[in-house]
Amino acid sequence: MRSTAVTFDTLRLPTAFPASQKKYIQGSRPDLKVPYREVSLSPTRLAQGTQENPPVPVYDSSGAFSDSACIVDLAEGLPKLRRSWIEERADTQSMSGPSSRYGRQRANGLLTSELRFPALPRPRRALPGKNVSQMHYARRGIVTPEMEFVALRESMRIDELRADPAYAALLRAHPSRDFGARLPAQITPEFVRDEIAAGRAIIPANINHPELEPMIIGRNFRVKINGNIGNSAVTSSLAEEVDKMVWGIHWGADTIMDLSTGKHIHEIREWLLRNAPVPLGTVPIYQALEKVGGRAEELSWELMRDTLIEQAEQGVDYFTIHAGVRLQWIPLTANRLTGIVSRGGSILAKWCLAHHEENFLYTHFDEICEIMKAYDVSFSLGDGLRPGSIYDANDEAQFAELRTLGKLTEKAWNNDVQVMIEGPGHIPMQLIEENMTEELLHCMNAPFYTLGPLTTDIAPAYDHITSAIGAAQIGWYGTAMLCYVTPKEHLGLPDKEDVRAGIVAYKIAAHAADLAKGWPGAQLRDNALSKARFEFRWEDQFNLSLDPERAREYHDATLPQEAAKTEHFCSMCGPKFCSMKITQEIRDTYGTDVHDAMAEKSREFREWNGEIYR
Amino acid sequence: MRSTAVTFDTLRLPTAFPASQKKYIQGSRPDLKVPYREVSLSPTRLAQGTQENPPVPVYDSSGAFSDSACIVDLAEGLPKLRRSWIEERADTQSMSGPSSRYGRQRANGLLTSELRFPALPRPRRALPGKNVSQMHYARRGIVTPEMEFVALRESMRIDELRADPAYAALLRAHPSRDFGARLPAQITPEFVRDEIAAGRAIIPANINHPELEPMIIGRNFRVKINGNIGNSAVTSSLAEEVDKMVWGIHWGADTIMDLSTGKHIHEIREWLLRNAPVPLGTVPIYQALEKVGGRAEELSWELMRDTLIEQAEQGVDYFTIHAGVRLQWIPLTANRLTGIVSRGGSILAKWCLAHHEENFLYTHFDEICEIMKAYDVSFSLGDGLRPGSIYDANDEAQFAELRTLGKLTEKAWNNDVQVMIEGPGHIPMQLIEENMTEELLHCMNAPFYTLGPLTTDIAPAYDHITSAIGAAQIGWYGTAMLCYVTPKEHLGLPDKEDVRAGIVAYKIAAHAADLAKGWPGAQLRDNALSKARFEFRWEDQFNLSLDPERAREYHDATLPQEAAKTEHFCSMCGPKFCSMKITQEIRDTYGTDVHDAMAEKSREFREWNGEIYR
Repeated sequence: MRSTAVTFDTLRLPTAFPASQKKYIQGSRPDLKVPYREVSLSPTRLAQGTQENPPVPVYDSSGAFSDSACIVDLAEGLPKLRRSWIEERADTQSMSGPSSRYGRQRANGLLTSELRFPALPRPRRALPGKNVSQMHYARRGIVTPEMEFVALRESMRIDELRADPAYAALLRAHPSRDFGARLPAQITPEFVRDEIAAGRAIIPANINHPELEPMIIGRNFRVKINGNIGNSAVTSSLAEEVDKMVWGIHWGADTIMDLSTGKHIHEIREWLLRNAPVPLGTVPIYQALEKVGGRAEELSWELMRDTLIEQAEQGVDYFTIHAGVRLQWIPLTANRLTGIVSRGGSILAKWCLAHHEENFLYTHFDEICEIMKAYDVSFSLGDGLRPGSIYDANDEAQFAELRTLGKLTEKAWNNDVQVMIEGPGHIPMQLIEENMTEELLHCMNAPFYTLGPLTTDIAPAYDHITSAIGAAQIGWYGTAMLCYVTPKEHLGLPDKEDVRAGIVAYKIAAHAADLAKGWPGAQLRDNALSKARFEFRWEDQFNLSLDPERAREYHDATLPQEAAKTEHFCSMCGPKFCSMKITQEIRDTYGTDVHDAMAEKSREFREWNGEIYR
Repeated sequence: MRSTAVTFDTLRLPTAFPASQKKYIQGSRPDLKVPYREVSLSPTRLAQGTQENPPVPVYDSSGAFSDSACIVDLAEGLPKLRRSWIEERADTQSMSGPSSRYGRQRANGLLTSELRFPALPRPRRALPGKNVSQMHYARRGIVTPEMEFVALRESMRIDELRADPAYAALLRAHPSRDFGARLPAQITPEFVRDEIAAGRAIIPANINHPELEPMIIGRNFRVKINGNIGNSAVTSSLAEEVDKMVWGIHWGADTIMDLSTGKHIHEIREWLLRNAPVPLGTVPIYQALEKVGGRAEELSWELMRDTLIEQAEQGVDYFTIHAGVRLQWIPLTANRLTGIVSRGGSILAKWCLAHHEENFLYTHFDEICEIMKAYDVSFSLGDGLRPGSIYDANDEAQFAELRTLGKLTEKAWNNDVQVMIEGPGHIPMQLIEENMTEELLHCMNAPFYTLGPLTTDIAPAYDHITSAIGAAQIGWYGTAMLCYVTPKEHLGLPDKEDVRAGIVAYKIAAHAADLAKGWPGAQLRDNALSKARFEFRWEDQFNLSLDPERAREYHDATLPQEAAKTEHFCSMCGPKFCSMKITQEIRDTYGTDVHDAMAEKSREFREWNGEIYR
């Protein structure tokens, strides 16, 4: 590892998943290779010989860390996959250094030199008058490598699998209920372009984040999940945050938000970005507040503007911007039980009231768009007035802000800037669907990005579960990305194990939503895992699961012996009471080609008018 | 503790919840006292003085263990609350000892004498020609003490609270969506009687389980949860199972099923029953199979009959009976991915195929009813053909069995025997609602009791979450009781920590469903907890949560100091970024009676036509 003053000695970086190989789908140009993970399975043992089980491709957000052919040096950062794509477009320029005041200051700061990423890249920005957003290209009919990349990534070789008889049974799936989504039979680059041009999907992909493996957020694609990390003034360090990010993407985070509010935010972000294969989002007002010593009333547009440029030039892919917290909506929170619970929302509310002026993010929204399009930073329009309790759900403050976000979406789209809309929060089940329909209506189908929602307030320490219940539902109804909640929500800063619990809970919610809305091929992994389960291929069952390590650990808690991995039972029921074992015995006894024999019996029965066995 | 050869030395029994007092609602007769838990809260600190927060009553399944006025001796068992109610009805007789062959054998067995519960009670049964089921009484217009007990228990003093101004704001709740449930404004004993008479609800309450604190399972009441315990041939002991039960009800299980399939099933059950304040359910075929050395084909009606009587005389409150696994439905499972996954279902399928005869539980169903009504054991009609994978969901095998269960329900009701219907299993979200509507239709609104359902197969080690997602939904749609799933499902026998994880996940699902379907007063706890959260009453937040110990532990992981319990922030955001703190500051700054001042601003704004702040 390159020598650096930041020590990562205590970190254990993730490696490849068990029985998994990192593979790449070759795109139309040599440097377009889309990663996925292929899980190899053992054969099914039959009475006569064995039968192969085809490998299962899995969507993979984990980056080069899980590629056994790569050794990642955190101090070098990841390979710059998109560099040539960006340069070829010839609409950007490389600058000599950061153009923000703060960026220059930090680049030269002596105090932080020890924490600095070793080889700071030179930032790029759009040439004067150019717009480098994916939406801008899409609207001009251009299919970018990024669009082709996500098309291949979303497809996950489904067309090939469909053509392969070995997958025929495994690809069977139930009819879906899509609540109006328009899922394509084939995910083509052209379809991706259409969706981005229409604003129904975004590819967050800052030109200063060439390490990014592009991904797409939109209702007509796979449901994505975000994992929040970031230190606070109370706890955590730079190395810990890098650790959380790397493990977060290993377990399946599609994007990471760095919500740091403590020390060295600028430096942490640099380390994260240079090692992030996924989009990184931030809430720039947090850093702006740090710069004024935590005194919200001292914030100003000039400071915010410098912060946006600082972060855009580092490579942040999307910004949460709470421009919908308008002065006029703040009094609507007066009778709430829990007031304003968004950090950003409360900071801006305080500023607005202190100055008795309109939110400067609202009044300067056009100028923000100018920055966004010069680097292709996507908006994540923040829901600063989201409800923080069941009591406050779906109230006028929340929906007034949502309508404002719709108006801002229009403005952003007039600038060809990509937008997603943040959503709540704490919502009882019967009020969830209204959130989705209101968002689609007022924000014209812009992707919805929700925090949970938590379906009850009464389970602190289990809010990954209270919220996974709501997340699965809203994902089904049409939400494009689900922001995770960890067990520590409301109680403290999540550590690495909390990140794991939150990510896996949200992978479950997102996958349950993909099954329900009918994402092509989504059921393959369920089918393959259940087949492995039924055939007592324990290792395959572990390896196909979202968290193979934990599944194995739980199995081994009572039956650690290696021999138990091929046993036809587990400790839950023991050998005599294993229903799957008994069913296997039935099939073994009543037919050599048991499926056919049983089906024959079934036919016979129907022919005999149900009287055959009487 | 009474001396016994069974050692419970290593057990730590649960005690009272923090800041909680066990209280009792006095019924119409001196010996009718309905337990609940009252959580005391600290006052709200205002600029001028403090404001009291009224205590919050919580439905409490935990029995005398959490009553600091009681010391439970496991070897004595719990107080026999219902004894006089049963005796007063004068329709039962006390027998000299067990009437089952096996019961007598075990009572005299030397080998198991050391494991035996010390003071075996003498079993009762109905006088010849009598029917002692709650349904029978209900249909004859009798309101039993059990019915009054559950009416008071379900109400949880809601009428008193409604009349008390201190609760006015806390009782506010959102409009519900009830999918056709008929929730009463007032829960009267007469309403309970009606629901039981109509078969829409059951009170599982064996006359040989006088320790029981009655509870009700029905769509028009609170959603309940069941926790499964029980050993297997591979692992666990008698003391461990008692431990799991006691802690399971502490965390909130409304009923417990003892699914033991290992050694000493009879003795374990005796210890459980004598210490169970909640209904205990079993799957008698498991024990019957043990009796024939695990050879399904050697099962017989005679053996089963003896087992049913044995267990009924111990006091089991409900039996899972897989009478719907008809011979003719078995071939319908031939083309399934995971065949038959119910233990009981697979045992009976094996028997049916071996003998090529109809399921003996189906052919002897009337005789089973005779046993059920002599002790008031309720049917839990088992779904032996439930799907064990997403692939197999909602198939013909499953629904054919469900329709058979409907026919059996009619038979049971003709005998005035109480019935609930078991449901799946593994179901993707878009197919869940069909399960509920089919059940209501074919089983004529008999209470539905579902296992999950799991909404995806891909997360072994997290199936408490995959299934809590489905459980919350089906509970909302109308399921009366949710059978929990633990993280160890599919992998091994759950230990005590797994029981905790499963119970809390299901308490969340059940409560989320109660909120959504609009159970009167359900939102009170959410509102009280959120108010505590907003006011930084950390201790109150912990104490009102489903698992106070875990919530406190997570908070203390980063801020263990006692002073932090009154701090206006936690480690998640730190002091400068706490949105709730900032909101409080806003309210403090912009008005002494801040709510009114903010509301006034809001009114002003509207009067000025939205132009006031421009």
